[in-house]
Amino acid sequence: MGMVGGGRGAFIGQVHRMAANLDGKIELVAGAFSSDPEKSKLSGQDFFIDPERAYGSYEEMAAAEAAREDGVDFVSIVVQNHLHFTVAKTFLEAGINVICDKPLALNIDEAKELQEIVHNSDLVFALTHNYTGYPMVKEAKRMLDEKELGRVLKIVVEYPQGYAVGDVEGEGSGAIANWRADPKIAGASNCMGDIGTHAHNLARYITGLEIDELAAELTAFIPGRELDDDGNCLVRFEGGVKGIIYASQISNGDENNLNIRIYGTKASIEWHQEDPNELIVKYANAPRKTYRRGNDYLGEAAKGNSRTPFAHPEGFIEAFANVYLAAAAAIIDKIDGNEAPEGDYDFPTVDDGVAGMAFIKACVESSQNNAAWTKLDT
Amino acid sequence: MGMVGGGRGAFIGQVHRMAANLDGKIELVAGAFSSDPEKSKLSGQDFFIDPERAYGSYEEMAAAEAAREDGVDFVSIVVQNHLHFTVAKTFLEAGINVICDKPLALNIDEAKELQEIVHNSDLVFALTHNYTGYPMVKEAKRMLDEKELGRVLKIVVEYPQGYAVGDVEGEGSGAIANWRADPKIAGASNCMGDIGTHAHNLARYITGLEIDELAAELTAFIPGRELDDDGNCLVRFEGGVKGIIYASQISNGDENNLNIRIYGTKASIEWHQEDPNELIVKYANAPRKTYRRGNDYLGEAAKGNSRTPFAHPEGFIEAFANVYLAAAAAIIDKIDGNEAPEGDYDFPTVDDGVAGMAFIKACVESSQNNAAWTKLDT
Amino acid sequence: MGMVGGGRGAFIGQVHRMAANLDGKIELVAGAFSSDPEKSKLSGQDFFIDPERAYGSYEEMAAAEAAREDGVDFVSIVVQNHLHFTVAKTFLEAGINVICDKPLALNIDEAKELQEIVHNSDLVFALTHNYTGYPMVKEAKRMLDEKELGRVLKIVVEYPQGYAVGDVEGEGSGAIANWRADPKIAGASNCMGDIGTHAHNLARYITGLEIDELAAELTAFIPGRELDDDGNCLVRFEGGVKGIIYASQISNGDENNLNIRIYGTKASIEWHQEDPNELIVKYANAPRKTYRRGNDYLGEAAKGNSRTPFAHPEGFIEAFANVYLAAAAAIIDKIDGNEAPEGDYDFPTVDDGVAGMAFIKACVESSQNNAAWTKLDT
Amino acid sequence: MGMVGGGRGAFIGQVHRMAANLDGKIELVAGAFSSDPEKSKLSGQDFFIDPERAYGSYEEMAAAEAAREDGVDFVSIVVQNHLHFTVAKTFLEAGINVICDKPLALNIDEAKELQEIVHNSDLVFALTHNYTGYPMVKEAKRMLDEKELGRVLKIVVEYPQGYAVGDVEGEGSGAIANWRADPKIAGASNCMGDIGTHAHNLARYITGLEIDELAAELTAFIPGRELDDDGNCLVRFEGGVKGIIYASQISNGDENNLNIRIYGTKASIEWHQEDPNELIVKYANAPRKTYRRGNDYLGEAAKGNSRTPFAHPEGFIEAFANVYLAAAAAIIDKIDGNEAPEGDYDFPTVDDGVAGMAFIKACVESSQNNAAWTKLDT
Repeated sequence: MGMVGGGRGAFIGQVHRMAANLDGKIELVAGAFSSDPEKSKLSGQDFFIDPERAYGSYEEMAAAEAAREDGVDFVSIVVQNHLHFTVAKTFLEAGINVICDKPLALNIDEAKELQEIVHNSDLVFALTHNYTGYPMVKEAKRMLDEKELGRVLKIVVEYPQGYAVGDVEGEGSGAIANWRADPKIAGASNCMGDIGTHAHNLARYITGLEIDELAAELTAFIPGRELDDDGNCLVRFEGGVKGIIYASQISNGDENNLNIRIYGTKASIEWHQEDPNELIVKYANAPRKTYRRGNDYLGEAAKGNSRTPFAHPEGFIEAFANVYLAAAAAIIDKIDGNEAPEGDYDFPTVDDGVAGMAFIKACVESSQNNAAWTKLDT
Repeated sequence: MGMVGGGRGAFIGQVHRMAANLDGKIELVAGAFSSDPEKSKLSGQDFFIDPERAYGSYEEMAAAEAAREDGVDFVSIVVQNHLHFTVAKTFLEAGINVICDKPLALNIDEAKELQEIVHNSDLVFALTHNYTGYPMVKEAKRMLDEKELGRVLKIVVEYPQGYAVGDVEGEGSGAIANWRADPKIAGASNCMGDIGTHAHNLARYITGLEIDELAAELTAFIPGRELDDDGNCLVRFEGGVKGIIYASQISNGDENNLNIRIYGTKASIEWHQEDPNELIVKYANAPRKTYRRGNDYLGEAAKGNSRTPFAHPEGFIEAFANVYLAAAAAIIDKIDGNEAPEGDYDFPTVDDGVAGMAFIKACVESSQNNAAWTKLDT
Repeated sequence: MGMVGGGRGAFIGQVHRMAANLDGKIELVAGAFSSDPEKSKLSGQDFFIDPERAYGSYEEMAAAEAAREDGVDFVSIVVQNHLHFTVAKTFLEAGINVICDKPLALNIDEAKELQEIVHNSDLVFALTHNYTGYPMVKEAKRMLDEKELGRVLKIVVEYPQGYAVGDVEGEGSGAIANWRADPKIAGASNCMGDIGTHAHNLARYITGLEIDELAAELTAFIPGRELDDDGNCLVRFEGGVKGIIYASQISNGDENNLNIRIYGTKASIEWHQEDPNELIVKYANAPRKTYRRGNDYLGEAAKGNSRTPFAHPEGFIEAFANVYLAAAAAIIDKIDGNEAPEGDYDFPTVDDGVAGMAFIKACVESSQNNAAWTKLDT
Repeated sequence: MGMVGGGRGAFIGQVHRMAANLDGKIELVAGAFSSDPEKSKLSGQDFFIDPERAYGSYEEMAAAEAAREDGVDFVSIVVQNHLHFTVAKTFLEAGINVICDKPLALNIDEAKELQEIVHNSDLVFALTHNYTGYPMVKEAKRMLDEKELGRVLKIVVEYPQGYAVGDVEGEGSGAIANWRADPKIAGASNCMGDIGTHAHNLARYITGLEIDELAAELTAFIPGRELDDDGNCLVRFEGGVKGIIYASQISNGDENNLNIRIYGTKASIEWHQEDPNELIVKYANAPRKTYRRGNDYLGEAAKGNSRTPFAHPEGFIEAFANVYLAAAAAIIDKIDGNEAPEGDYDFPTVDDGVAGMAFIKACVESSQNNAAWTKLDT
């Protein structure tokens, strides 16, 4: 694989590389790790890349790799949000498969244009909504697919973080990356764009339900911030399902506290990202059950996306690696000319990315209209 | 004490009696336990009441007890919602102190009338918002009072129960008491009135913050129900504090899952009613702390409202009994002609009851207006 | 009821009174609350006792109450360990039923003598091994009775407390009551006698298994202590079941952390006193189940010993009150001349007390013999 | 790196490879994956190994790799227990650094011989006691090193698993690998050798305390097993510290439930392998603290061994990878001629392995002598 962005010190680039490394099936062989060619070369050395494949720009890389016989099978795009579209477009047009960090693009228009490009191509495009890579999230999806909860009534997704509270009144250690606070780079929303979309995607992935409309209040608690650092939504899903989705970066002391609860007529489930190896199932008049990763009684997806026996905890990187493995399987099938498996591959697509951008857009518009109900533009 | 309502088999009456019994300081000596005089007598026997003080009606009881030299010091009112107002009024007008189950009344008008009666009297009126009786809730209030969290930014209160989901599609064992589904008896809201007010009261009690306006969506998921069995609110507290309050009776498998999280600039807290002996405090860059009931390091209110050493768990009845003890202290001081202590007594008052009715009214009106922002009528 | 010991400020006496009060069925009407008649009178006032029934000594009380037509139906004995035997004997010989705090006596000889007195009388004798009063402990017993775990292989009971560590090296706030450190008052063991017996009793109650022999190491960590403040035992139960029982008062920061795990060939259970409303059941290849107090799916004993709906937490006092209720039922049946119910009453008896004393004796002897295997003298 | 053992389908070999892959710094380039040369070749293909470096035997591999200019920097040994000694010896004598799975050898004599070989060489030898690789275990060690707990009084280490219970009475799905039940392959103990040593090592790593003597009871619950599947030990550490260490494979429904609690005069800690990102600290009279991985307030070792931000959970593989990284750092320093860092490298050594073998030997001997106190042969 190749990589655009993610040079020395970049957190998410490092995560993508660990996810790709883990199973020993993907090798990083090329990259444009920085817009500064010098820095890109240095990062290339860190990653044991052949110097001639440590490129000074993504355009150069796309052209060169497309031209090589042993060019990369795919590129990982881990640049800042506002560049996702252009970089992805460039590689797709060069005929190279793409794994792209979320959000898909800077806005819905870019997102839809990219969607069209992907649909008109024969290429694989995967978006790293990594939380769907957890085995117990896949088990949750299986339960919903098989109607084990009955009819869904209500969905509550919470995603409080506290890392950005520190700026308030000059206290604390927290700070938000500058670019995340800049609408030209981050897009129309910071908090909902960065983590609210994960919450939204998680609900969609597990239940298959689309949001019909939402009423959102986005707030910038930290003085001087142009973009939201907190957002709360009332949600109306299709089919009369009600819900709450909220995300926050000023929830002091919360770390990465993504939780989902889905309530059905027969049973309910809850899953906590900070305790990802368990899935709790609750009933009206029966003992609660705790499903635990690594057990034989789980569905195929949960089992197939595990690497260690029960209670040898797996975490964030392993889940991320599952997205890579699924995308890689699709890419290998493309290369080898194989059919897609029944039920298709299990990774987030460009369509999921468009849905996410529609969610962000609706949140921002609703909030600008005093939390008026706003339909999703999908 | 005397009691109105709460005869054989009534859940909440039994809770009130256990709460009153626990500390050996309050004795049940009279009651109108049923509107059926025969049944009232039988219940009186169960409770070892002198037969002549087991009355056939609350009017009879108020008159008789007021006339007795050894008449009850106070009456506990545990009748259905629509009777709270009349019964309370009757006893107050007879000069008898009142401990009343929540909600305060059927609607805000009744509530305000009762408020005026209480304010114009020299009597004690306590409302059993029992969750504020937990020692660790009192510790949370102390932390807020002493500004240990810094400035409050956000409040999230959840109160999902699942017991009323069973009616859906003919499945399950859950059912809602008939009278709770009847607006003439329960008031304009079922779920928000029954448990949403507890959530609201808990936030007010701990933080002292009033809601400015809210946007609510109430739903009756169960076909045929006139009143809500689920409600979600976006909330704007005074001073720019944002929040979410939700309550539900169709959250299948949840039992009595009242939780509150309060996020401040210096620290945040969370408390879970199902694990009431702990209070969790979270910081931006310091280890989380777990405060546990029964320890010397706690504030006076938490210590003074405990009965057993640490980790000899206390629960719902003990918290309820704390409301009784605080009200009883006020009643004894009235009787003995003592001054109220500094900082006043620590029990929910008629004013808290009015605030609760205003919350319910705003929820219902907002929901009727498609979740439009609605001010609280306080 | 009457009470011996438990005057002003005595912790366990207060617990016994709350347990007796809770359900409104038992009234404290007499007592010898202190060996100092003056103090006994004052305590009697606190408890609203008729002054003539606030006695100056237990001998006086036993004689006077036995002579009264309205004499107490039973006496609660909450004096220090070394007096349990004499006081209990006195009341039994006066024909008065007894509820006695544990341990049963100062040593096994006293215990066996008391056992004989009880067996030769027609009186009720209950010992407050209160942890068996928890509903979910009763549910655990039901599972074992009904062989839901298959054959039991292993039992682990832990009971670490930390309150007595504070004396070490002059630090901390912890201290042990003087009398507990004095073998003439506490008996041959402090820690194993005080809390180790609870651990032992819990295992016996749930599984019905007797210990065959044990290897114990008792330690007095705190310099100057004559008696143990920590003890660890390897245990061989009857039938080849193996186990560990340990208790500690120097496990710094632990509060009342009594836990039991029982491993069977079909399933295993664990119960935690600090989280008493849950019982966890684990299987070889099925999701774990969490049984929760207050649900309809529980057995009769768990349901019958609950007072509030699910997730309205019950705690230590309620469990204690269950021992009182069960003993009171037996006493009422005696008085009324009723037969005992099928399966007998569910409270700890004098036989359980003898078993506990045999456990203590074996622990002490084994430890004195360098943890040699020691049979229980039962 | 090269690998001996760990072909297709071998669990622990796959874990070692993932641990080595994760950080993109170690590449698998050679191996003798099976004693069957054909199978070894096939595994080599799976792992993208140059066919000429997929060897048919470890002897051949050691010779060939030692002779190559680009020979492996180290070998990972993941064969069955009885071969650890011979394979390790072979590679060490060929001048190749070794990372070896635990236990170190089949018995203490082999272990000591290997120890001497390592000490007389200039080579790195690391043993994968992987649980010491967890960041929060390293934080625990820091607390002990810095005397934050005061003087240690007591240590309790539990390691119940249930996977091997299934054979009992023909029920269940559990089974133990055949070779683990065979003393010629597994050594003198199964359960204590396989997981008891992890428990022992964890206590030693964190506290630095050696066991003076122990009293152990090992049991083979499953009919027909020659070796133990359960073991319980009373332990006397140096300096008067008391403890319990137990391990089990028949604790039905437990998965990989390794826990350690260390009680000191100032504070106590507990860590749970199944929830590895937290470390709980308890005090006599202060709120409990929960230290969480990924935070700035942690010590250098905990921070340096983390890969993701707080609450992006890390697990078993990451901890394992930390052992690899530390060993690799030592190997690189050897190759580059660098000095070892102050405080040395942080990975388990051959000396830790010898201590583990002494622990196993003492357990077996004590158990054979009816749990007599037995000194460790170190």
